[in-house]
Amino acid sequence: MKFTIAIVGLLLGAAQGQTFQRLGTCPTFGCIFPPDQANFLLGQFFDIRLEVHAPVNGTEANGKLPDEKFTFTVASSSGSPAPAASFFSVAEPALERWNFTWYEDLFAQDAKTPSLVNVTSKAYRRVRFTAPGTYTATLNYNNGSTTKATWHVRDLPKTRRAKNVILFIGDGMTTNAITAARLIGHKMVNGYYQSKLALDTFPVIGHQMTHSIDSFITDSANSATALYTGHKSTVNALGVYADSSPNKFDDPKVETIAELFQRLVKGAVGIVSTAFLADATPAALVAHTRDRGQYGPVVDSFFNGVANYTWSNWTGVDVLFGGGAENFYNSSLGGLTYLNRDQYAEAKKKGYGVVYNNTDLQKLPNNQRALGVFSVSNMAKWLDRNVFTTNLKNQNNSADGLKKDAIDQPGLKEMTLKAIDIVSARSNGSGWFVMSEAASIDKMLHVLDYDRALGETLELDDTVRATIAKLKASGQLNDTLIIVTADHGHGFDVTGSVDTKYLQAQNTTRAKRNAVGVYQNAGLSQYVMTGNLTYANDSHFPSNWDPRYTLQQGVVTFPDRIEDYMVNKNGPRTPAVNTSAALDNYVANPKEHTHGILINGTLPLNEAQGVHSLTDVPVYAMGPGQELFGGTYNNIDIFYKIAEVYGLSGKGL
Amino acid sequence: MKFTIAIVGLLLGAAQGQTFQRLGTCPTFGCIFPPDQANFLLGQFFDIRLEVHAPVNGTEANGKLPDEKFTFTVASSSGSPAPAASFFSVAEPALERWNFTWYEDLFAQDAKTPSLVNVTSKAYRRVRFTAPGTYTATLNYNNGSTTKATWHVRDLPKTRRAKNVILFIGDGMTTNAITAARLIGHKMVNGYYQSKLALDTFPVIGHQMTHSIDSFITDSANSATALYTGHKSTVNALGVYADSSPNKFDDPKVETIAELFQRLVKGAVGIVSTAFLADATPAALVAHTRDRGQYGPVVDSFFNGVANYTWSNWTGVDVLFGGGAENFYNSSLGGLTYLNRDQYAEAKKKGYGVVYNNTDLQKLPNNQRALGVFSVSNMAKWLDRNVFTTNLKNQNNSADGLKKDAIDQPGLKEMTLKAIDIVSARSNGSGWFVMSEAASIDKMLHVLDYDRALGETLELDDTVRATIAKLKASGQLNDTLIIVTADHGHGFDVTGSVDTKYLQAQNTTRAKRNAVGVYQNAGLSQYVMTGNLTYANDSHFPSNWDPRYTLQQGVVTFPDRIEDYMVNKNGPRTPAVNTSAALDNYVANPKEHTHGILINGTLPLNEAQGVHSLTDVPVYAMGPGQELFGGTYNNIDIFYKIAEVYGLSGKGL
Repeated sequence: MKFTIAIVGLLLGAAQGQTFQRLGTCPTFGCIFPPDQANFLLGQFFDIRLEVHAPVNGTEANGKLPDEKFTFTVASSSGSPAPAASFFSVAEPALERWNFTWYEDLFAQDAKTPSLVNVTSKAYRRVRFTAPGTYTATLNYNNGSTTKATWHVRDLPKTRRAKNVILFIGDGMTTNAITAARLIGHKMVNGYYQSKLALDTFPVIGHQMTHSIDSFITDSANSATALYTGHKSTVNALGVYADSSPNKFDDPKVETIAELFQRLVKGAVGIVSTAFLADATPAALVAHTRDRGQYGPVVDSFFNGVANYTWSNWTGVDVLFGGGAENFYNSSLGGLTYLNRDQYAEAKKKGYGVVYNNTDLQKLPNNQRALGVFSVSNMAKWLDRNVFTTNLKNQNNSADGLKKDAIDQPGLKEMTLKAIDIVSARSNGSGWFVMSEAASIDKMLHVLDYDRALGETLELDDTVRATIAKLKASGQLNDTLIIVTADHGHGFDVTGSVDTKYLQAQNTTRAKRNAVGVYQNAGLSQYVMTGNLTYANDSHFPSNWDPRYTLQQGVVTFPDRIEDYMVNKNGPRTPAVNTSAALDNYVANPKEHTHGILINGTLPLNEAQGVHSLTDVPVYAMGPGQELFGGTYNNIDIFYKIAEVYGLSGKGL
Repeated sequence: MKFTIAIVGLLLGAAQGQTFQRLGTCPTFGCIFPPDQANFLLGQFFDIRLEVHAPVNGTEANGKLPDEKFTFTVASSSGSPAPAASFFSVAEPALERWNFTWYEDLFAQDAKTPSLVNVTSKAYRRVRFTAPGTYTATLNYNNGSTTKATWHVRDLPKTRRAKNVILFIGDGMTTNAITAARLIGHKMVNGYYQSKLALDTFPVIGHQMTHSIDSFITDSANSATALYTGHKSTVNALGVYADSSPNKFDDPKVETIAELFQRLVKGAVGIVSTAFLADATPAALVAHTRDRGQYGPVVDSFFNGVANYTWSNWTGVDVLFGGGAENFYNSSLGGLTYLNRDQYAEAKKKGYGVVYNNTDLQKLPNNQRALGVFSVSNMAKWLDRNVFTTNLKNQNNSADGLKKDAIDQPGLKEMTLKAIDIVSARSNGSGWFVMSEAASIDKMLHVLDYDRALGETLELDDTVRATIAKLKASGQLNDTLIIVTADHGHGFDVTGSVDTKYLQAQNTTRAKRNAVGVYQNAGLSQYVMTGNLTYANDSHFPSNWDPRYTLQQGVVTFPDRIEDYMVNKNGPRTPAVNTSAALDNYVANPKEHTHGILINGTLPLNEAQGVHSLTDVPVYAMGPGQELFGGTYNNIDIFYKIAEVYGLSGKGL
């Protein structure tokens, strides 16, 4: 018996888009957000947006005026459809209108022939479900057309099982990267590792699918949104579904795990990242905007929550540690902040301890809220803080905005351990939630600086190790669920070794390639068998970052680049440079790896760096509820598992 | 307190080797096999070999004559060292002598200045431990030098927990490949997959480390050896540690799971592969040789076991299904067999049913041993058997050696289901063991034919699905441990989509690159949203292998190649060709992907294909003992877990 695949919705033609889409999740002209398939936590606040599209030109043009009379109903599985306003007990919202353009494909973009779409819309704000089950949302538009969305409000156990949760995110960290980090940081004898990664000791492994709601590749913004809210979204979106309006702050929001935890449990919340703090992975815990680039508003929301529209009463994060000082000091020092606020002064007014370096970080009292900003932009990489330390000089990046060098930066470990001290002291028996991000695994893979990416990965592992030890020593280990995962992958792996002495001695690119040893000829890891670097007890990092025989490492998709397979001693790589400011044309950076192998790229010419990849990523879990994290699932499931472990489902209803 | 890394053995200099090694696991001049760190199953037979090296020239030359007076003792943790012959109750073996040469590095290879080594050696055959615990093996040589090996005989539970085990091996199948297979075979709506891979339903996931004993990259031979024996080895070795002798059959052996299962349990054993049956993954279950290329002896050992040296009394496999007819019919038909045997005739004499096509496979009785060989060389790929079927013609590859076309080949599913039928009927209550290999995931990734590799991956998943259904229907599911894993990785991933229409329309390579859509512009999987291909109930494969928008796929390390990101309709790819028979010089094949993007490679010029990668690979487990397979471990651990589940530890002692 043959199984026929049903084609839902429009037959795909040029208008369906692929490189570009009119609006993700909306193949027809009537759009519902959250869309069909969406899951919800029972009691989780969210916004609804409806849109009706009237394409004016292009292949979809239907000659219709935008429909102002659309109706929208919601029905439970046992009830009749009711208008949304009465179903959710909110006022009927006003009708909104706008238009937008898009290119139907690359040919249209080259020809500069955009398609124009008129839109009518409504948004219902801050609604929620009060009973689990399946609901049907129906949009009736254009006098006879219908879009239906089936929504699932999960029926989760309600008993709290963990007091605390710490969620480690290795940004861009795949199993492939973890394997390579182990290889350069831990000694192997005849196939047996003599020590383990902390990750290797976790009892439960799962795999999560990272894709966006409307693309099979994701970015850190919408994947963080998925992890924190249980709702997937579109690339660049933070805590919202992406609508088509030009306003970057009116998109329909979803409540995050941090907002739920603070609202329902009143525990302490800590956010730690080695990135600039306005970056997506920390931002998505509290910010709600279509555009991750809204750095000023993002930073303000850590303290004040959402500034417009009715939303949760966010009272401010307990701990915020990371980089990105340029979104904290205002224009008087060259910064860019929300309403030009001096966020340091504002934080102090609110009673935060504010520090700019590791020495002062260590002195912070534990019972006070704390803001620690340690550099302009992304924080220094482990490799430069610990090995190639001259690279910390002449950066003019001190967090106070006075353009000194930030040479006393904490690492992910110092920030995370102190954050735990503070949230533990402040939790008042209600427990705590900490998100700790090793952000530069991803940032260094983007610039093909594999060595620095692996240094960041080993730093994350060292942080996990030290965290487990601290939780054990403070008697919190049995009550804390520890999760380590990534937001998405990079197409990274190791395929052999490189005799760098031989490579450098060859005169042609083709001859240099014979320096690579594959299979048997890869040999052993010289990173731990040679060299003199040593580290504090229990910390595992290479004893040599510059052996004669290095790793052949790479990513599957890349800009033009030159590879000599040697560590960059002068700081993070810049693999490609733009030859033309007017028309992006990235070529291999001639100043790097000057005696290496030139490889022409596979990315569009406006891409300066490597990109994200499809692969499922690993999830490691240890602690109460760990068994929920085994097997294969979607990234949004991680939100529901954490919510279950905290007992948040239906709490307070 | 600083932790200093101890440097064991010789300081690494040029002589330590890396691209090349004098002898893997032996950095000094006294070598013990099995080497330091080795683990053993209690009661598992193995050989011991000692070697003493006397380098004549090169950087290690020590001016010594080879030592004929070395001594070797073994001690339990509570006993005194005893000479090995008395410890294991075997005769003292004769002294052996040989020499070999090796290149100390690539410069020496270019200069053609090999280093010569004289060797004295002894081998103790077919010994075993009769008590668990830690043992110390000591080689005293050169009048005062010592090599010690610590051996661990595992103390495993002895109670049998599973009646049957089926071990699926996706050769070269990483999590990254599985994710891509899901994307093209299963429909996604707004981020939610509408159906799952069979692998997605497994309750337990683990990760295994695949590295060789003396290199961080492995091949299929020694990784299969690790999975089947609990002992890692050297690239190209099957069921042995690789010694330095020129004789490819005298290397020290280790007993495999198939040999143990037949010897101790007397259950039925089935071997299934889509490769030529002499290939490493099937071969390593029974063959014992330093050199995986010994195809004739390998095939003979499926029926007769090891032909020389004292070893297990292997009575022959119950089921053997796969390709590689050229090692079954003899030279009269152009084949190459052990002692020029007609292996088909020999099998029939032994009572095997012998078949050459799927029609006859289906008719085999279940109570008889069975040999099914379905093609010359590797079997046809799923994509060519099911979609581009004209590629089966003009192959002259029928398994009977008569050079007809093998157009009626079974797939992995048909072979595996029939194998289960036969071993179930023949097991006589003792249970059964089946290994089923999707061999061409790896073979197609090697030739950068990503589409075919994903077709093979989906076929493996379909086979697993059908196997679970069959075991359920036959009442065996609760008694069968199902394991799915890989032997090693390829550095494969997906990074976006490609508008192939746009790519083909551009005139320059650089402009073609703008056809790639990354992040948001990757869009949705057209492989399941367009096209008309349909499949039998519950089987999931793409409805379209040739949509306008394809996947941007790649591997991290590669020969020169041209990519147009479109499926090869004429059969498997040949990405690179040799311009010079005398001196290997592989360049991109100008006859393939002729309107694609030329990318110069990163491999040595004698490499025609992609290579293996470092990454840990996934393990999926379902059934009695499944919980043993969670977390992170070494590939050798899989052997011990299977042995534990079968109750093999110490059995029969």
